[in-house]
Amino acid sequence: MTPTNSASTASAASGFQKLLDDLPRTGPGTRGGEMLRRYWHPVCLSENLKDIPIAVRMLCEDLVVFRDGKARAGLLGIRCPHRLASLEYGQVRDDGLMCSYHGWRYDTQGHCIDTPLEPCDSTLKQNIRHLWYPVQEWGGVVWTYMGPEKDNPPPLPKIDVLARTDGEVKLVDGDTRNYNYLNWMENFADMGHATILHGLVVRQIPRELEPYTDQSIKNWTPLPLQHVETDYGMKTVSVLDTGDPDVKFVNTWSLAMPIHWRFSGIRSGFPPDFTNERQEGGGMIRIIDDTHFELIRYSLWRKGNYRGTWFFGLPSTLQGTVEKKAHDKRRYSAWEGIPALEDLVLQESQGEIPDRKLEHLGTSDRGVVMLRRIWHKAMEDVANGKDPKAVFRQVNDMLEVDTYHGHIKASELKIGPENMPSSMDGRGLIRDRDGKLVFA
Amino acid sequence: MTPTNSASTASAASGFQKLLDDLPRTGPGTRGGEMLRRYWHPVCLSENLKDIPIAVRMLCEDLVVFRDGKARAGLLGIRCPHRLASLEYGQVRDDGLMCSYHGWRYDTQGHCIDTPLEPCDSTLKQNIRHLWYPVQEWGGVVWTYMGPEKDNPPPLPKIDVLARTDGEVKLVDGDTRNYNYLNWMENFADMGHATILHGLVVRQIPRELEPYTDQSIKNWTPLPLQHVETDYGMKTVSVLDTGDPDVKFVNTWSLAMPIHWRFSGIRSGFPPDFTNERQEGGGMIRIIDDTHFELIRYSLWRKGNYRGTWFFGLPSTLQGTVEKKAHDKRRYSAWEGIPALEDLVLQESQGEIPDRKLEHLGTSDRGVVMLRRIWHKAMEDVANGKDPKAVFRQVNDMLEVDTYHGHIKASELKIGPENMPSSMDGRGLIRDRDGKLVFA
Amino acid sequence: MTPTNSASTASAASGFQKLLDDLPRTGPGTRGGEMLRRYWHPVCLSENLKDIPIAVRMLCEDLVVFRDGKARAGLLGIRCPHRLASLEYGQVRDDGLMCSYHGWRYDTQGHCIDTPLEPCDSTLKQNIRHLWYPVQEWGGVVWTYMGPEKDNPPPLPKIDVLARTDGEVKLVDGDTRNYNYLNWMENFADMGHATILHGLVVRQIPRELEPYTDQSIKNWTPLPLQHVETDYGMKTVSVLDTGDPDVKFVNTWSLAMPIHWRFSGIRSGFPPDFTNERQEGGGMIRIIDDTHFELIRYSLWRKGNYRGTWFFGLPSTLQGTVEKKAHDKRRYSAWEGIPALEDLVLQESQGEIPDRKLEHLGTSDRGVVMLRRIWHKAMEDVANGKDPKAVFRQVNDMLEVDTYHGHIKASELKIGPENMPSSMDGRGLIRDRDGKLVFA
Repeated sequence: MTPTNSASTASAASGFQKLLDDLPRTGPGTRGGEMLRRYWHPVCLSENLKDIPIAVRMLCEDLVVFRDGKARAGLLGIRCPHRLASLEYGQVRDDGLMCSYHGWRYDTQGHCIDTPLEPCDSTLKQNIRHLWYPVQEWGGVVWTYMGPEKDNPPPLPKIDVLARTDGEVKLVDGDTRNYNYLNWMENFADMGHATILHGLVVRQIPRELEPYTDQSIKNWTPLPLQHVETDYGMKTVSVLDTGDPDVKFVNTWSLAMPIHWRFSGIRSGFPPDFTNERQEGGGMIRIIDDTHFELIRYSLWRKGNYRGTWFFGLPSTLQGTVEKKAHDKRRYSAWEGIPALEDLVLQESQGEIPDRKLEHLGTSDRGVVMLRRIWHKAMEDVANGKDPKAVFRQVNDMLEVDTYHGHIKASELKIGPENMPSSMDGRGLIRDRDGKLVFA
Repeated sequence: MTPTNSASTASAASGFQKLLDDLPRTGPGTRGGEMLRRYWHPVCLSENLKDIPIAVRMLCEDLVVFRDGKARAGLLGIRCPHRLASLEYGQVRDDGLMCSYHGWRYDTQGHCIDTPLEPCDSTLKQNIRHLWYPVQEWGGVVWTYMGPEKDNPPPLPKIDVLARTDGEVKLVDGDTRNYNYLNWMENFADMGHATILHGLVVRQIPRELEPYTDQSIKNWTPLPLQHVETDYGMKTVSVLDTGDPDVKFVNTWSLAMPIHWRFSGIRSGFPPDFTNERQEGGGMIRIIDDTHFELIRYSLWRKGNYRGTWFFGLPSTLQGTVEKKAHDKRRYSAWEGIPALEDLVLQESQGEIPDRKLEHLGTSDRGVVMLRRIWHKAMEDVANGKDPKAVFRQVNDMLEVDTYHGHIKASELKIGPENMPSSMDGRGLIRDRDGKLVFA
Repeated sequence: MTPTNSASTASAASGFQKLLDDLPRTGPGTRGGEMLRRYWHPVCLSENLKDIPIAVRMLCEDLVVFRDGKARAGLLGIRCPHRLASLEYGQVRDDGLMCSYHGWRYDTQGHCIDTPLEPCDSTLKQNIRHLWYPVQEWGGVVWTYMGPEKDNPPPLPKIDVLARTDGEVKLVDGDTRNYNYLNWMENFADMGHATILHGLVVRQIPRELEPYTDQSIKNWTPLPLQHVETDYGMKTVSVLDTGDPDVKFVNTWSLAMPIHWRFSGIRSGFPPDFTNERQEGGGMIRIIDDTHFELIRYSLWRKGNYRGTWFFGLPSTLQGTVEKKAHDKRRYSAWEGIPALEDLVLQESQGEIPDRKLEHLGTSDRGVVMLRRIWHKAMEDVANGKDPKAVFRQVNDMLEVDTYHGHIKASELKIGPENMPSSMDGRGLIRDRDGKLVFA
C-alpha cells in the first residue's frame, strides 16, 4: 500500500465524477459546451424565419436570428451593444437589423453599419463589432456554427434525408423539452427500452396494420442488440430470426454526433412495416441550454409507405392510448401507448440533469456506455486542440447516416460500420407489397 | 467582567440561534429531521392507494408509495437505481413495482427482483438494494418509519380515535400548506389566539346553536389557560366558572409528538356544544419538507352530535363568512369568520419559516415556549442517542391522547397529565340533551 | 511604468464598476438605497387607502399602509413583532392597527398600545416599538420618508402640478414594471430615442390632429437636444427652427430627483399640440425593489386641450397600433405605435438590471451620462453625511419642475436652469386656437 495508490484511486474517482459533470454541459467554457461548439447546429426552420426577428437561446447563449431585407439570415447576440435593448424587437432593414431603441444597425456579420443619432462625422460605429455567428441555410433549416475560427468553419454536414428527392421530406419543429439533451440521446442509444417501455405497442398491433406485419419474425422480445461505433457516431443493430434460416431481419438505429438520430422504418423495433419502400426517419436536437432542448424531426414519406393513424411525434393532448383513471393524479396521466409520449415521460422523469453517479448499469446498458465513451473522447480531443469525431473538414457533402430496416441474406450479414447495408443504395432484401422478397 | 463571561454569553446567544435554526428542519441529517425520524408518519390514506404509484415527498425525501398486486403497501425511493427514471410511472406487479423504462422490479423492501434485459444468468440484481422504508397500514392510514433500525422500528402508536367503534370515524386529507409545520403546531399550543382571531365566531353564535349554548358559563374571554407537559407531548387546559360555584367547565387541547393534535368538542373553546355525547376531533401532519405539509384531519361523529352547517375544515372557496369588499386585493380577501381559514391565513402570514429571533414573546406565549422546550429536549435526546419523548418501545397499543370538554365538579379538578378527565373513560360531568347535568 | 499606476488604473476600473453596481440599488444599507432614503416617496393614492390595510413593498422593505379609524394614514413593518403574523390581515381600530392573531395594536408611530392577552398589569407593551415611517398625505397621494431622523424629516416637496387649480388634475396608478426604475429614468433623460423608437408616430399623424399641427416647424428629426443640470435634477431642451427666423419652437423634459419626471404638451417631441392652453404631464415612481416599480402618472387637463383618442398611458391590451402578424410570437407582439408601450417594451428588454459595463455610449447619450453623474454625486454626498441634490430643508413649498412646449422669440432664448421659460408663469409664445401667435 502506498499513498500514491490511494491518491490515484481518488483521482480516478474524481476523474469519473468530472466526466459525469462535464458530459451534459452545453455552455461556453464548459468541456461539454466547447465540444458541442465544433459542430453545426440547427437554429430554426427556414420557413419560420420571416420579417420578425426571433429570440433563440442556443447552447446557453441568448441570440437573435433574423432575415434581412435581402433574405439573408443572420444570428447575433440578442442585446444591442449600445444600451442593451433586445434586438428581438429590432426592425428588419435591407442591409441588416436595426435596434428599435436608438436605431443602431447591424449586418449579418455583426458590423455596426449605422448610429443615426450620432453626429454625421462620427466614427463610433467603426469600433463596434457585435457578437455574430456564421449561418447557412440548407435543407429547410437555418444552421449555425458557434465554435472557434468563425470565418473558416468546417463544412456544413448535409443531412442525407433532407436532400432526398424520391419522396416527400417533412420537417416538424416545436417539441421543446425541459431536461438535458443527453436524456434523449441516451434513450436512443439504448434500444432495449423499446421492449419494455414501448412493449405495450408490440402487443397491441392495430387490426389495420396486420396486413403489413411479418408473421415470420420470431422472438421480437427482447431485441438482440449489438452496438457499433461509426465514423459519424454509433449505431445499434438488431438481427432477428425469420421463418427462413437463410434470411435475417435487420433493424438499425444510428446516432450522428452530437445531435442527430436516424432510423429506418417508422415503427422500427416494434411492428414491422413491410411496405414496398422503406421509410426514413430521424431528427436533430436544437440545444437550448443544459436543461432545455427542442426536437426537430424529419421523415421521408415515399409512395407505398403506411399512412395510417399511428402517431409518430408527440400527441398534442399528451395522452396515450389507455383510459385515464380518476385517481391518476400524475403530471402525465394515462401516458401509455404512444412511443414518443412514453419516451418523453420516462426521459423527463430521470431529472433535468440525472445524477449519473447514482446509476447501476448492466450489460444491457452497453449502448449508453458507448455513447458516453464517444462523448468523453470528443471532449478530450477538443480539450487537446483536435477536431472531435464527425467533424469532416475535407468533405463538403452529404452526411450519410446509414440505417436499415428489412430482410437480408444471412450469408451477407456483417455487423460493422463499413459494410452494413445502407439506406441510400438499397442493398439487402426488401419485401414488396405482395409480401414477396425482392433482392436489390 | 471576564472574557469567559462574554464568550459564554455569545455562546448562549448562538446556542439559542442554533435552536431556532434547528427547530423547523425536517430533512435528513438536520437535528430537527433526525428527531422527526424517530416517529411514525402518515404517508397517505389507505383508500387512495390503488393501482397507480403515488409520488410522495416526506421529510424532504422524494419517495413513491404503491400497493403491489397482493395489496401490500410499499414505500421506495422515487428514482429507479438503474438509470434514475421515476417509479411514479412504474407498473404495479403482483410481487412489487416495475420501472417502466427497463423493467427492473422491486419488492416492498427494496429488493431488486428482476432485471429483464440482462442475460438469464445475470447476478446483477442481487447487488441492488433500493431505498425503502417500512410501512404499516392501520386505521385507514398508510404509515411509515424513516429512522434508524428500519428492520426493528418502534411500535406504531395507534391513534385512539381511529380505533373507536362507538361512532363514525371520518378521515379527510388533501389540505396542503406552503409553510413550516411548526406554524401549525405552535398555533395549536397557543389557544389564546382563539379569543382574538376566532373571537368573531364567539360573538356571533348562530340562532340554531343557541339551544345548545350553556348560558351559565361566565367570562369566555380571555380563556384562562394552563399548560401541562404530558407523556405524549403537552396539553392546554381552560377551566371556566359556571353559575354553580361547585362546578367548572373544562376544555382541553392536546398535542402528541411530533405531528398530532386533539380536541374534544368540535367547537371547543368558543360556543360550547352540549350534546349528549361529546365529539372527538383532531388530526396529524404529513410533513412534506421544511416549507410544506399536508393536514390529515379526523373526527368521531356520534349520535346526538350537532350536525349543523358550521364548518370544521377549510372551505373550498377560501372565503370566510364576511362580505368581500371590492377594494380588498389581498391574497385572502374576506377571510374572516371560519376558524380553519383564519388559522391558515395567519399561520401562512408568519412566513414560510418564521424568523423567530425577531419575536417578542409575552406571558401568554407560555404554551409556545413549552412546545419549543419539548422539541429542544427531543432533539437533544436524539443527538445523544436516546429515544425522544413519546417513542414508546415497550407498548404496542393505543396512543391515548386525552381530551375533555364539559362540566366537572370543582372538588375533583386537578390539572395534570395523570389525573385529567379522559375522553375515553367518560369521567366528569356531561350535560344531557335536556340540559340536565349527569354525573358519569 | 510603476506599480502605482496600474493599481490606480485597476482602482479606477473597480471604482467605475462599483458605481455601476451601486447605481440601481434601492435596499437599506446600499449606497443607492441610502441615497433614495433622503427623499419622500409615494406609497399609494389617498383614494385607495380605505378600511383594509395594504401590503406595500417600498425600497426592498415589506411594509403595511393603513388608515386608522380617525383617518390617519400610517406605514408600519408588515410583520407584527409579537409572533410575526402579517399586519396586512390586521384590523383597523380607532387608534391604530390591530394584529388579528393575538390582538396587539399599534398606532401610526409604531407604539404598541395594547397586548390584550397579557395580564392587566403587564408592562410588556411599553418595551415594544414597531418599525414605522412618517407619512404625509398631500395632493391625493400618501407619501413617506424612510431615511434617518424620522422625527424631523425634510419638508415634503409638493409637486406643483398636483396643486394646480386651473384645470383638472388626474392621477393614475397601477402600472407596475418588472425591471429597475433607472431603466425608466434613463429613458426619460435620453429623448433622442423619441426620434427612433417613437418615430413611427411622427410619420403617422392622425387626420384629426392635422389642424393642430404646426407646418412651419422644420427638421423634427433628429431632435437637437441639450442637457442642463438644474437645482432639482436635470432637463433636456430641444430648440427647433420655424418658418420665422426670429421664432424658435422649444420643448423641455425635466427630471426631478430621484423619481419625478415632467413634460409639457402631451405629445411633446412628436406631433406638436397647438391648443390654446398647454397641457402639463408627468409622474413619479414608486420604487418597490431593485427590479420592480410602479408608475404613478399625473396630468393637468385644461380647457382647449386636445381630448382625442390618442393614448398617453399604457393600453390595457398591451397592443400597439399595428396589425398583429400570426408569426409574431414575441412576448409583446404588434407593440409598435403607442409611445408608452414602446417604452415599456424597450426598457424591459434591457434586462431587469442592465449590465451597464457592456454598453457602448456615444455623444447622443450625454443625457444618460448626466443623469448617472448626478446620481453618483448624490450617493457620494449621502455617504459623506451631506444632503443630496434636491433635498430642500429650508423650503416647505412647491417643487416647481419647469417645462415648456411652444414658440419663443429667438432673442429671448437662453438655455439654462434659471432662465428657461417656466410652465407656471406662461412666458414665451403660445399659439391660440385660431393658430395666431400670442405673446404672453
